[in-house]
Parts: sequence; structure tokens; C-alpha cells
Amino acid sequence: MSEGDKALRVAVLGCGSVGSQVVRLLTEQSADLAARAGARLELAGVAVRRLDAKREVEVPEHLLTTDAMDLVTRDDVDLVVEVIGGIEPARGLILAALENGASVVSANKALLAEDGATLFEAADKSARDLYYEAAVAGAIPILRPLRESLTGDKVTRVLGIVNGTTNFILDKMHTSGAGFAEALEEAQELGYAEADPTADVEGFDAAAKAAILASLAFHTRVTAGDVHREGIAEVSAADVASAREMRSVVKLLAICELRDGAVSARVHPAMIPDTHPLASVREAYNAVFVESEAAGQLMFYGPGAGGAPTASAVLGDLVTAARNLLSGSRGAGESAYAALDVLPMGETVTRYHVGIDVQDRAGVLATVAAAFAEHGVSIQTVRQEGRGDDAQLVVVSHRATDAQLSATVEHLRNMDIVREVTSVMRVEGEND
Amino acid sequence: MSEGDKALRVAVLGCGSVGSQVVRLLTEQSADLAARAGARLELAGVAVRRLDAKREVEVPEHLLTTDAMDLVTRDDVDLVVEVIGGIEPARGLILAALENGASVVSANKALLAEDGATLFEAADKSARDLYYEAAVAGAIPILRPLRESLTGDKVTRVLGIVNGTTNFILDKMHTSGAGFAEALEEAQELGYAEADPTADVEGFDAAAKAAILASLAFHTRVTAGDVHREGIAEVSAADVASAREMRSVVKLLAICELRDGAVSARVHPAMIPDTHPLASVREAYNAVFVESEAAGQLMFYGPGAGGAPTASAVLGDLVTAARNLLSGSRGAGESAYAALDVLPMGETVTRYHVGIDVQDRAGVLATVAAAFAEHGVSIQTVRQEGRGDDAQLVVVSHRATDAQLSATVEHLRNMDIVREVTSVMRVEGEND
Ligand SMILES: NC(=O)c1ccc[n+]([C@@H]2O[C@H](COP(=O)([O-])OP(=O)(O)OC[C@H]3O[C@@H](n4cnc5c(N)ncnc54)[C@H](OP(=O)(O)O)[C@@H]3O)[C@@H](O)[C@H]2O)c1
Ligand SMILES: NC(=O)c1ccc[n+]([C@@H]2O[C@H](COP(=O)([O-])OP(=O)(O)OC[C@H]3O[C@@H](n4cnc5c(N)ncnc54)[C@H](OP(=O)(O)O)[C@@H]3O)[C@@H](O)[C@H]2O)c1
Repeated sequence: MSEGDKALRVAVLGCGSVGSQVVRLLTEQSADLAARAGARLELAGVAVRRLDAKREVEVPEHLLTTDAMDLVTRDDVDLVVEVIGGIEPARGLILAALENGASVVSANKALLAEDGATLFEAADKSARDLYYEAAVAGAIPILRPLRESLTGDKVTRVLGIVNGTTNFILDKMHTSGAGFAEALEEAQELGYAEADPTADVEGFDAAAKAAILASLAFHTRVTAGDVHREGIAEVSAADVASAREMRSVVKLLAICELRDGAVSARVHPAMIPDTHPLASVREAYNAVFVESEAAGQLMFYGPGAGGAPTASAVLGDLVTAARNLLSGSRGAGESAYAALDVLPMGETVTRYHVGIDVQDRAGVLATVAAAFAEHGVSIQTVRQEGRGDDAQLVVVSHRATDAQLSATVEHLRNMDIVREVTSVMRVEGEND
Repeated sequence: MSEGDKALRVAVLGCGSVGSQVVRLLTEQSADLAARAGARLELAGVAVRRLDAKREVEVPEHLLTTDAMDLVTRDDVDLVVEVIGGIEPARGLILAALENGASVVSANKALLAEDGATLFEAADKSARDLYYEAAVAGAIPILRPLRESLTGDKVTRVLGIVNGTTNFILDKMHTSGAGFAEALEEAQELGYAEADPTADVEGFDAAAKAAILASLAFHTRVTAGDVHREGIAEVSAADVASAREMRSVVKLLAICELRDGAVSARVHPAMIPDTHPLASVREAYNAVFVESEAAGQLMFYGPGAGGAPTASAVLGDLVTAARNLLSGSRGAGESAYAALDVLPMGETVTRYHVGIDVQDRAGVLATVAAAFAEHGVSIQTVRQEGRGDDAQLVVVSHRATDAQLSATVEHLRNMDIVREVTSVMRVEGEND
């Protein structure tokens, strides 16, 4: 067999937004892909749920099947791309593919974040690759840089805007002053949010990605269940306006930190200063900001979703997996040697921005300050605005544990002179 | 030999800014590096020019040598880090190391851009790795993403701010209104520019990086000599002010483009709009903006130089090379299958921003416009400002070949009604 005749056979599971673009690129770029992989990448079959659905790509009829399990266990399949999504049947199919000696590329953040360990174990057992660059931040190469480029360095923190829907909504609120409901509606009209926006808006999608990022950055196992999660449904136009006044923006962040040898992984809205590189990430774009001891501050920016961008990431993995198969080698598998504890949210160290409606009378500032002090929280700045009978205080704290800060807020809510705690938001991205 | 006993021996050539940080990290992070590489990385020796120089790291005396060639040809050296710089002796040492069966990591952009082909050939012959992530944009993982993550995609353009010194100078000029000489002096005082700033200011450093980026992005061979190069010494405070008025900034860009199946690689100052992600790259930071067919627009941002950041990139490569040695495999080597032509600058398609002092009399605008039309250049916008006897015209063209545009400027210079062409600058980063 001459060099030019070498071929590897690829099964694609799922032919929706991502799968159809994977199939398209496999066909349209086949000559370049062959030159880069060292062998032709031939489409062995495409598994779908409905044979007769309309697709964005033409798939030869004889390649379509509804029996995905049959496809991945065929003798002539070398590489499997899983772009079905969800836990089952995706997990069973990936395990069967690995057992059958295929290397696997997946875009499935939900599965990787819930049960990556089972998949990595199966990949190790079969000495095959399991790549999943597309699972976090779509087209942006972030997992490979974390796993390979920064592997000689010590990553200390990852801050990510990893959900395009919520970034679009928050950006709208910031630029137009709209409230959450209005911005969500616009996002839905434009196709940036789904009819049921729960997975995005409540932070489930971002939490899965935070788990994957934390695992790779700190060489440990973090699952979606380990990630503290707060969505953006409670973010008000007033919060966003208040951030603006502080020359900040509100972003939904996936935050992964090393702290005293333990990991903090969390997703919540936070204010970040306008000068932070993440602040200028607009619309549905994603970006991941990485801090490490030697490299310092890095940022990776690009489209976080969409069929073609996500397919780009899938194909990058596919070519690497193909090269490894041809040379009889494997890429770096799971690296979880550090086995770190996950910090409960209460022990996480953050800063709070608190808006308080208080009675406008002498000594009110001192009383409020005393409440912060009682919980061991020191105050960085207070801004006071009198408004007739009431006054509005805006307090930004120094760093303290989340438990201390939430106890302080609870305390404020029970004080006579406090009419209402109007806004509570964490502050990130500043040196302290 | 048990897993924990496995060791690979590393020779470090050069112990200056970068080398001393490589040695420091090898020592300080040895446990993590061993876990990630799959073997301890032991320092076999450090080659320097002067044994008695003061260093930023303590190197055990018996490991220091001035005989680099002896070190790289020793039997017990598995990996060689070349951080001496320049063409010779670096090239000879890398070739000897590869021939001796070692894998090599280098940060040497000058050598890679001048004679990469010889090195890749030697690496192929010995079936060893040659990695050089640190050669472009210091700590920022950009070569690996281009080579591996985007290998399933088709990169169409790369725009890079890849020289920190010139970005610092231009950023100073932009924020303070200073002229070039003044900003350069400040950069020198702060250690951002060398006493002899030629390599940075004249674009030689950026041109080497452009050659490396173009080669990887387009799977072809581009050398430093293929890169059209203009520095920033001619950029005036007036140019920068004029950019400001157009809501743009002046940046020194390394530009690599695919055009009708040929490559354009060039380095020159250009105006880019404030809204472009590269516009907000401040001070000495670097960033590389990549456009590809499927992924769309990506940006990679971070520190482009400095001992520790550069060492981070070197160590990432070193761990990968170590893993490959242990598994008997190789990473992706040179990929130059496309063998594309390099476009001469005249055939490159760009846009020009031209400032012209003209006599303020009727019909002058029509006459100037006719000059553009005569060379087939269409005008996007003209701004006219009367100033007593003179008027100032600012013309921004649509896209045309660089030859057409420079002929137009030459023509303008010879016109009676033109007192002076005060500013000529290319415009990049806008869709058209
Ligand atoms: N879309 C994005 O922008 C994006 C970005 C990053 C990651 N991802 C991830 O990529 C994966 C796929 O997402 P997507 O947006 O492409 O989803 P999608 O458009 O809903 O497509 C899912 C595909 O899976 C097929 N399918 C469902 N159940 C199946 C079964 N039991 N057997 C065989 N095929 C089955 C469907 O078949 P029918 O077409 O016949 O219904 C459909 O073609 C998910 O893990 C997602 O999280 C997506
Ligand atoms: N500095 C950066 O920020 C940066 C960033 C990216 C890439 N790089 C690249 O990294 C490389 C090293 O840069 P650097 O800034 O570390 O340079 P440097 O500070 O000038 O250090 C050069 C080192 O090489 C040693 N050396 C010179 N000639 C030698 C010879 N014949 N044999 C053995 N050793 C010799 C010198 O020894 P003595 O100490 O005894 O004089 C010195 O330790 C260059 O290719 C550069 O382009 C640097």
C-alpha cells in the first residue's frame, strides 16, 4: 500500500448543528486533511435518530444509519466522532468505540463533566485517544494549550466567559440598559438563546465547562457536581448600572482557582473592571483568561459555539488522533495525579459589591461598617448617595471568605436601618 | 527500573534571560514536571560563554561548561534546550544534538526563520522532535494551536502584534501624544527597548516571526527574506493623531495572508479600528489574531517576552518532547506540503490612508480624486480641512494592490497643487 492509499475510516455519531459541519469539512477539505493527517479520512458512516430529517449537508444514503452501536463496533472504523450530546446513549457508544479499538473525539461537555473518569479509564485500557477540545469554548483552542503548552508551568487561576448566550444577554443589558427578561427575549429572537434557556441562563452549561477547565488546569478531577453554580436570572438592570458607575461590567464567569492546595470551581455573575481583557468580550463571543506562575496572564478569545466553529475544533482533534493512530502512539491522556480537594463555596475567597437602601440618618454609615467588621470583612470603598428620606450605600469589600461575606449580607438584611439590600455581586479580576 | 526512577537528561544551552528561568523551573517544579512528562527531567549540563558571569539562578559548578558541542554530543543527553540565540553556533549545536538522537526545544526565531528547513530535515532524519513555541510571541501558545488545533481548518489570515518593544512605543505615542524619538527613549529607560533598538524598531524581529507564522498557518515554507518589512521609525505623532481621529490606532503588524493560492507575508505599521480586538493590546503585550474558514476569528493574547514567560513556553515543549521520547513517537514535524508562492509586496492587496497638504482652491478635490482614479484606486472617504492658504485632505482608499497605491502616492507627490504628502499608512483589520 503506497503512502497515498493509506486511509482511516471515520464514524460520525450525530448529524445536527455540529455533526453536519464535521461531515461537510471532511468532504470539502479532504485533500488538505489527508496531507496533514498522513492518511485519507474516509467517512465510514453517520448515525442519526431520524433517517429522513432535513440536514445542512448531503450524506450519501448508504452511509446513514439509526443504529449507532452497530456503526461504532464495526471492524472497519478507526475513529469515532461523538456529536450527539447528553449522557446516554453517548457514553455507551464512546465506551464501545474505545473497546473496539477506535480513538474518539467528542464535543460533549455534559458527559465529560459528569463522568469523564469512566471514559478516560476506558481510553487508557484500550490505549486509544479521547479528545474533546470542542467541549469548552467551541472553536477556541483552550484545552490543548492548557494540557500541553502550559504543562511546564503552574496555572493558578482560570477565568472564563464560556457561555455565549449569557454573554450576549449581559452585553445587551450593558449596552442598552435593558432588563434581563427583555435581553433574553432578544437573544431568543436572534437565535442566541433556546426556547428553554435554563441550561445557559442558570449556569449549567458553564459549570460543566468549569469542571473540565479546572481538571485540566490543576491536574485533578473536578466534576460538574463539584462546581458552585449561580445563574444570571437575578441580575438586574440596576446591578448592571451600578457596575457601569464603577467602570465595570457584569459577566457570567467560570472561575477555577488554586487555593492552599485545594481547588475552587464556581460559576456566577461578577463585576470585572473595564480594563480587564475579559471586559471587552462582546456579544456571544467566548474568552478564557489564564494566570500562571511563569507565563503570567494569557487570554484565548473566539466564537464559543456554532456548527462550523465547533466542527473546526473537532477536526483538529481528529487529525491529531489520526496521526497518533498511524504512528502507534497516544496523546496525553487524563492527568489527575494531583488529586486535590474541592473547596466548599463558603471557604472561597472573593470580594463583594453590596448596594443597600438605608434610612438617611446620622451614624448609619458607622453602623453598616460595624456589621461588616463584626464578620471580619474589611471595606475597600463606600459610596453614599442621599435620596430624600433614604440613602443608598454602595460598599465594595476587600477579600474575605464567601461565608463571611454572605453572613454580612444576612446581617444587613436584618438591620432596622436597612430598608433593603438592593444588590449583591461578587467582584473579580482585580489584583489585590 | 520502576516508573519513579525513569529519568531523561536535559542539556540547556545558554543561561541568560531565558535559560536561567528554564533552569530555575526545571528545579523548582521538578515533581510536577516528572508527573506530567512521565519521567524526571534531570539537568545534564548548562553551556555558557563565560563561566564566571553572575546569573539569575544558581547552577551547580560541575554542570556549567563553555563547551556546548561537547555537552550536546554526550551519550547521556536526551533533550536539548537551545536558548543562545543567533545563527551560529546555535545551528551547528542543534544539528549535532539531533544527529546524536536528542530532541530539541529552541526559542530561536532568527534561526528558525532563516534556515528552518535544514533543521526540520535533520529532525526528520533522526526521527526526533524540534519544537519552538517560544520563538513567536513568547509565552503565548500560538504555534501549537496553529499546527495542531487548527489543522482541520483552513487558516486564511494571521494578524500579529508580535513585538513588545514597538507595541510599547506606539502605545505610548497613542496615549501621550509623544513623538517616536521620545517614546523610544522612555521604552529604553524602562527596559522595554535595547540600547541598539534596530532589530525591534526596523521590524526584523517581527519579520522573523511572520515567516514562522506564515509557514505554519499555510503549510508552506516562508523565510525571513520573503517577508516585506517596514519599521516604525517613520511613524509620526501626526500619523498617530490622524488615526485617533478615525477612531483607530497605529500598530506594527505581522500580516500573513492567503491570496489566490499564494502567500503574502509582511510587517509594517498599519491603522486598525478601535473596535478590532487587536486595538486594545496595550504596552508590551503581544497578541495574534487568526481568521479561518470554519473557526472564524480567534485571538491569542499574553506577554510576548521576558525570561519567565518565555521559559514557560520552552518547558511546555520540553514536557511534550519528553513524553514523545518515552513513548517512542514524534510530534507533528514540518508541514510544508502546500509549497505556495510568496507574493511580491506590489501584488499585495491593502488599503491606504493618505494625508495631503494641498493648495486651497476650487477643484482641488476633483484633481486629487482623478489621480487616484487614474491608478485604478477607488476612494472610500475623503475629509477636507481648510487652513488659510492650505487645505489638508485625508483620503482613505478602498482595497487595491500595493503597487497601484504607491504609484498613486508618487503621482500625488508630483502634482503642482500638492504641497506635501504628510502621511501614508496602510489600513488593516476592517471587513470590506
Ligand atoms: N451546537 C454548538 O454550537 C455546540 C458547541 C459546542 C459543543 N456542542 C456539543 O456538540 C454536541 C452536539 O450538539 P449539536 O448542537 O450538534 O446537537 P443537535 O443539533 O441537537 O444534533 C444532535 C444529533 O444527534 C442525533 N442523535 C440524537 N440521538 C441519537 C441517537 N440515539 N443515535 C444517533 N443519533 C442521535 C440527532 O439526530 P437527528 O438529526 O436525526 O435528530 C442529531 O443529528 C453536544 O454534545 C453539544 O453540547 C455543540
Ligand atoms: N529574552 C526574551 O524575552 C526572549 C523571548 C523569546 C525568545 N527569546 C529567544 O531566546 C534566545 C535566548 O535569549 P536570551 O534573551 O535569553 O539571551 P541572553 O540573555 O543574551 O542569553 C544568551 C545566553 O547564551 C550564552 N551563550 C552565548 N554564546 C554562547 C556559546 N557560544 N556557547 C554557549 N553559550 C553561549 C550566553 O552566555 P553568558 O551568559 O556566559 O554570556 C548567555 O547565557 C534567543 O534566541 C531569543 O531570540 C528571548
